[in-house]
Amino acid sequence: MPLSAFSHPYLCGLLGDEETARQFSAEAEIAAMLGFERALARAEAAAGLIPEAAAERIDAACGSFVPDMEALRVGTARDGVVVPELVRQLKAAVGADAGEHVHMGATSQDVIDTALMLRLQRVCALFVRRLGALDHLFQNLDGSFGSRALMGHTRMQAAIPITVADRIRAWREPLQRHRERLEAFSVEGFPVQFGGAAGTLDRLGDDGPAIRAAIATELGLVDAKQWQSQRDRLAEFGSLISLISGSLGKFGQDVALLAELGGEIELVGGGGSSAMAHKQNPVAAEVLVSLARFNAVQISGLHQSLVHEQERSGAAWTLEWLILPQMAVATGATLRIAAELVRNIRSFGRAIT
Amino acid sequence: MPLSAFSHPYLCGLLGDEETARQFSAEAEIAAMLGFERALARAEAAAGLIPEAAAERIDAACGSFVPDMEALRVGTARDGVVVPELVRQLKAAVGADAGEHVHMGATSQDVIDTALMLRLQRVCALFVRRLGALDHLFQNLDGSFGSRALMGHTRMQAAIPITVADRIRAWREPLQRHRERLEAFSVEGFPVQFGGAAGTLDRLGDDGPAIRAAIATELGLVDAKQWQSQRDRLAEFGSLISLISGSLGKFGQDVALLAELGGEIELVGGGGSSAMAHKQNPVAAEVLVSLARFNAVQISGLHQSLVHEQERSGAAWTLEWLILPQMAVATGATLRIAAELVRNIRSFGRAIT
Amino acid sequence: MPLSAFSHPYLCGLLGDEETARQFSAEAEIAAMLGFERALARAEAAAGLIPEAAAERIDAACGSFVPDMEALRVGTARDGVVVPELVRQLKAAVGADAGEHVHMGATSQDVIDTALMLRLQRVCALFVRRLGALDHLFQNLDGSFGSRALMGHTRMQAAIPITVADRIRAWREPLQRHRERLEAFSVEGFPVQFGGAAGTLDRLGDDGPAIRAAIATELGLVDAKQWQSQRDRLAEFGSLISLISGSLGKFGQDVALLAELGGEIELVGGGGSSAMAHKQNPVAAEVLVSLARFNAVQISGLHQSLVHEQERSGAAWTLEWLILPQMAVATGATLRIAAELVRNIRSFGRAIT
Amino acid sequence: MPLSAFSHPYLCGLLGDEETARQFSAEAEIAAMLGFERALARAEAAAGLIPEAAAERIDAACGSFVPDMEALRVGTARDGVVVPELVRQLKAAVGADAGEHVHMGATSQDVIDTALMLRLQRVCALFVRRLGALDHLFQNLDGSFGSRALMGHTRMQAAIPITVADRIRAWREPLQRHRERLEAFSVEGFPVQFGGAAGTLDRLGDDGPAIRAAIATELGLVDAKQWQSQRDRLAEFGSLISLISGSLGKFGQDVALLAELGGEIELVGGGGSSAMAHKQNPVAAEVLVSLARFNAVQISGLHQSLVHEQERSGAAWTLEWLILPQMAVATGATLRIAAELVRNIRSFGRAIT
Repeated sequence: MPLSAFSHPYLCGLLGDEETARQFSAEAEIAAMLGFERALARAEAAAGLIPEAAAERIDAACGSFVPDMEALRVGTARDGVVVPELVRQLKAAVGADAGEHVHMGATSQDVIDTALMLRLQRVCALFVRRLGALDHLFQNLDGSFGSRALMGHTRMQAAIPITVADRIRAWREPLQRHRERLEAFSVEGFPVQFGGAAGTLDRLGDDGPAIRAAIATELGLVDAKQWQSQRDRLAEFGSLISLISGSLGKFGQDVALLAELGGEIELVGGGGSSAMAHKQNPVAAEVLVSLARFNAVQISGLHQSLVHEQERSGAAWTLEWLILPQMAVATGATLRIAAELVRNIRSFGRAIT
Repeated sequence: MPLSAFSHPYLCGLLGDEETARQFSAEAEIAAMLGFERALARAEAAAGLIPEAAAERIDAACGSFVPDMEALRVGTARDGVVVPELVRQLKAAVGADAGEHVHMGATSQDVIDTALMLRLQRVCALFVRRLGALDHLFQNLDGSFGSRALMGHTRMQAAIPITVADRIRAWREPLQRHRERLEAFSVEGFPVQFGGAAGTLDRLGDDGPAIRAAIATELGLVDAKQWQSQRDRLAEFGSLISLISGSLGKFGQDVALLAELGGEIELVGGGGSSAMAHKQNPVAAEVLVSLARFNAVQISGLHQSLVHEQERSGAAWTLEWLILPQMAVATGATLRIAAELVRNIRSFGRAIT
Repeated sequence: MPLSAFSHPYLCGLLGDEETARQFSAEAEIAAMLGFERALARAEAAAGLIPEAAAERIDAACGSFVPDMEALRVGTARDGVVVPELVRQLKAAVGADAGEHVHMGATSQDVIDTALMLRLQRVCALFVRRLGALDHLFQNLDGSFGSRALMGHTRMQAAIPITVADRIRAWREPLQRHRERLEAFSVEGFPVQFGGAAGTLDRLGDDGPAIRAAIATELGLVDAKQWQSQRDRLAEFGSLISLISGSLGKFGQDVALLAELGGEIELVGGGGSSAMAHKQNPVAAEVLVSLARFNAVQISGLHQSLVHEQERSGAAWTLEWLILPQMAVATGATLRIAAELVRNIRSFGRAIT
Repeated sequence: MPLSAFSHPYLCGLLGDEETARQFSAEAEIAAMLGFERALARAEAAAGLIPEAAAERIDAACGSFVPDMEALRVGTARDGVVVPELVRQLKAAVGADAGEHVHMGATSQDVIDTALMLRLQRVCALFVRRLGALDHLFQNLDGSFGSRALMGHTRMQAAIPITVADRIRAWREPLQRHRERLEAFSVEGFPVQFGGAAGTLDRLGDDGPAIRAAIATELGLVDAKQWQSQRDRLAEFGSLISLISGSLGKFGQDVALLAELGGEIELVGGGGSSAMAHKQNPVAAEVLVSLARFNAVQISGLHQSLVHEQERSGAAWTLEWLILPQMAVATGATLRIAAELVRNIRSFGRAIT
């Protein structure tokens, strides 16, 4: 048993998803945070709040900045967030005078939450694309085998014959709804976060809203008032992606049962056993069930995090960090694995006689 | 500690919500199930599948039918669902010939899931109304105290002063989103369920879709193909209502902290202590936190239920029954309690000097 | 869908357990709370803290007291706990002078937590007995069929033949461990709770510990210092009973799969279908899975309740009330259902040829 | 937000625990798995089942074996477990004839579950030690400040004064019970797993039990019959460690509230803010709450895994891999952080006047 199966040297092959995981690397987070600092400086310079030359220096430094990771680790352990130390390093990299203008009017949560939105937006787009591709695979499967017969089972008993198309429809329709939901969510679901010390942009005076809007535009995010203690969007996004893994868990469970019952499905690519050479284990199908149940467990944590006290809750916020990234990678993995599994179905159902 | 606090003789006063709970009484479920059987018979008579006279007899019987509850209990224990015994009783009440046409082409899940949709639709409308009323209360609170000062707190430390309006905004905006989500969800979220034995309406031939549409129209539900093993709508509805209780949990936590810190809020209606006459406990605020965490726990179960194997999973389906009704009542209770709590705020913030 | 399946007019037949549920009725809680008040008065009289005559009057009143439930409901809604109003009523029932000595030095939590311990102790003993009886049933099943062959399945694939005894051992051994755990837990797991206003028995002076010990003896509970904000025993008890339902969920899942695969098990007492007369659904087996997953969801809530702030957390405490009783009844139901299911196995395995 | 905060370049400083995490590295797992294979070969040679020379070659190869990690990743993706590919590589490393005797009679689950037990045993011992050290720190804190006054708070309201010793007792006593539980659990809680293909040690004939016992002795584990589908020990261990993090979450919550209320605690080492230089955030206290809630979420997954179908469930087993290691590291982190936090308390309570 590994610490995190999703980023583990060998288990990631089974359970991980590289494309999703990439968004949650330290490098990706730092790049997104620097993107915020750079956009902030530009916007503040445009508003005349900091010198244009300083913004240029900050912009240039963000492009070449290489953080001292060990110092970031020590700083995070002390401050609970990486930002104070990151800003200190960035100020040093920018240099004497201009450095003072780094991060002006912002607070740690602005940087981290905005950097998260940037990456969740990409993850959301990725999942929309994959859901589309998966839908296409199911359509093809339906084209190949939809008219064949399948024994319908209710309450763990053979009931009456249905068609393969009936079963595929039960797998496919929820995924279509999930894709619609993600698309609808992405319209307003990923706003910039910018509030300053306690959410009031106190150091920016009347310029606050305009600067926030400029940052949003620069970063390709929705502009919205600060939402630092309103965590419902994260819980909602988590719920949406857990619906995806849950629906694919049903697909996996069904395939595993088909494989166990025998006679109605033929799979390739199944797993081998270290003790029984004759076995072809429906590993992908089982793992879909595991990941569905994993996300069904995790979603509870994001809903607990809604109880986010006052203007910023270190406790509730940190809990999100422990949960959301793995839910995203678990979902990415289910989409990856489900596509493989559909492609590995060589025969499905019985010819109608 | 009582079995279910939501329907307990005395704890329901604290934790229950009568208006929501009413939808989950045995009587309400039976009435909704009879509504399905009646609509089914009418639609089948209109399609010429059963005699018009039989439909009239069924319709009349559904209007006056009084079930033998003890026999329903015994039947449910045996069959896992109440429907076989209910149909048996209903057939007897309809009488000899016409009775044979009761429930024709339907299965237990059609009756129970449709009866659930009817009631969730009402619960959803109730929550939308209450969210609107609560928004109005917050607006009034803002009108009364919004311009006053409040110490902003971040990470359990006094930070900088904000305004009462800033805090109220953090409570109010998520609820506005939740209301929008429920309204959007209600457009397609409550479809009729009608699939017959294994989802194929096998006994109705080509008439199946038309009969399903007629039932939907009669009952005021959306028409949709059977979704018996697609449980995402229930998990999604559960997530949406858990967002409501979660956001109100933040409100409760904030009020409890204001009450503990003292000096910035004045509440009436607080609870008394059996040991300390001087205390005014912020009971309502605390209970909002309890109910938020309760739903955050429960939501996990609805996501587990997405792994609904084959054409009907007794295991996953029964799990929903154990969880969703209490989530709904818990959410109803949070809306009821939050409204009381807002009304009990007599003073909020400090005059700006 | 009913509000609480465990206490529902018809669903309780399937999912409830009367013997366990009885401990969580309003009547049982009130009786246990009166038992505390009575024991408290006696102990305080013996220590000379209240008049002996008052203790006798309190004792007598507790024996005949009939609470005004509607007033309890209103009081609970206001105070967050039933005790202030109950004590008010009890004082009135005791009458003028003696009434003043009711509840002396105690607080609501003392009454409620001690009343809970009294009932959990009985529930624990009940479960120990049922685990013993179930073990005996499995032993008999083993005696009847243990030597027969069964196809072993790993990862949803037929592996190699095992014996029925092998499978029964996998069901039985965990239950033996759970029984041992409950027995060990019951030695110290159900202490009296007695702390007064903030846990210091401030009104009893040096007599506090002796009075607490006397109450414990009177009630048959372990004596221990107040533990009002130490909720680990409840979370531990919840975990232990969730292990029981979880292990029986494995039994249920295995039986359901045996029933679906066919040929190796013969069950009687299966459920009927409203659409398919030929089916015998393995309802009991499925429900064991549902209840296992239900408790696996709920246990999260008891662990959340461990974060019980300061001397008494209304939020964390109330959350326990919403969760623990249903976990107990769910566990009681799994023990009841599992015993029925074992008895309904008419044949198991294949003759070894 | 990082993929896994526990092993993240900078967040691990805040949330990780190196000493615990070490047990869940790929290297530690491989070493433990090789330990199993080596002990197996020795025991089989001693029983005359494989040549002594082969066992020596296997033993030697296990000492110097360097796995091809990329091939392990590919193999795990295919087989669902790392073992088939690991055994293939190990056989090749052992060489021609002797290689055939590697892994004889064992299956993947034997290797992985035994390798897990070896490491959990160490984790358990580590936690016992840390709980002892923490108890000592609390004792010292009590010695320094126990006699001072503290305002007792119930239901988020000041109640009556207590002593610092009262509060420390509420933190300390549950931890003492948890330590006792871990010590009791460790007596029988970490058995060897050895069952072969479907749990019957079918390839070893009458020698099976003796070989299992020999492996257990060699590895320092308890000998017990195979328990491959009996997952209660893992759920129980998970519950026990979640009790630890939960109890420390209460400690953290209390300290955070003390810090917010002010005047009764003085902390050093608090976190800095990127926006407000004057703040000293009680980061460690908050993180204890986060980790408590994290484990309270995760424990649900281990209880779900109890529904482990048939002789081996790929789905339920894989779910454990996703959850248990992080629970262990989260618990290790709470013990590390709590000890730091106690040491950082410079003053506690008020002098009694």
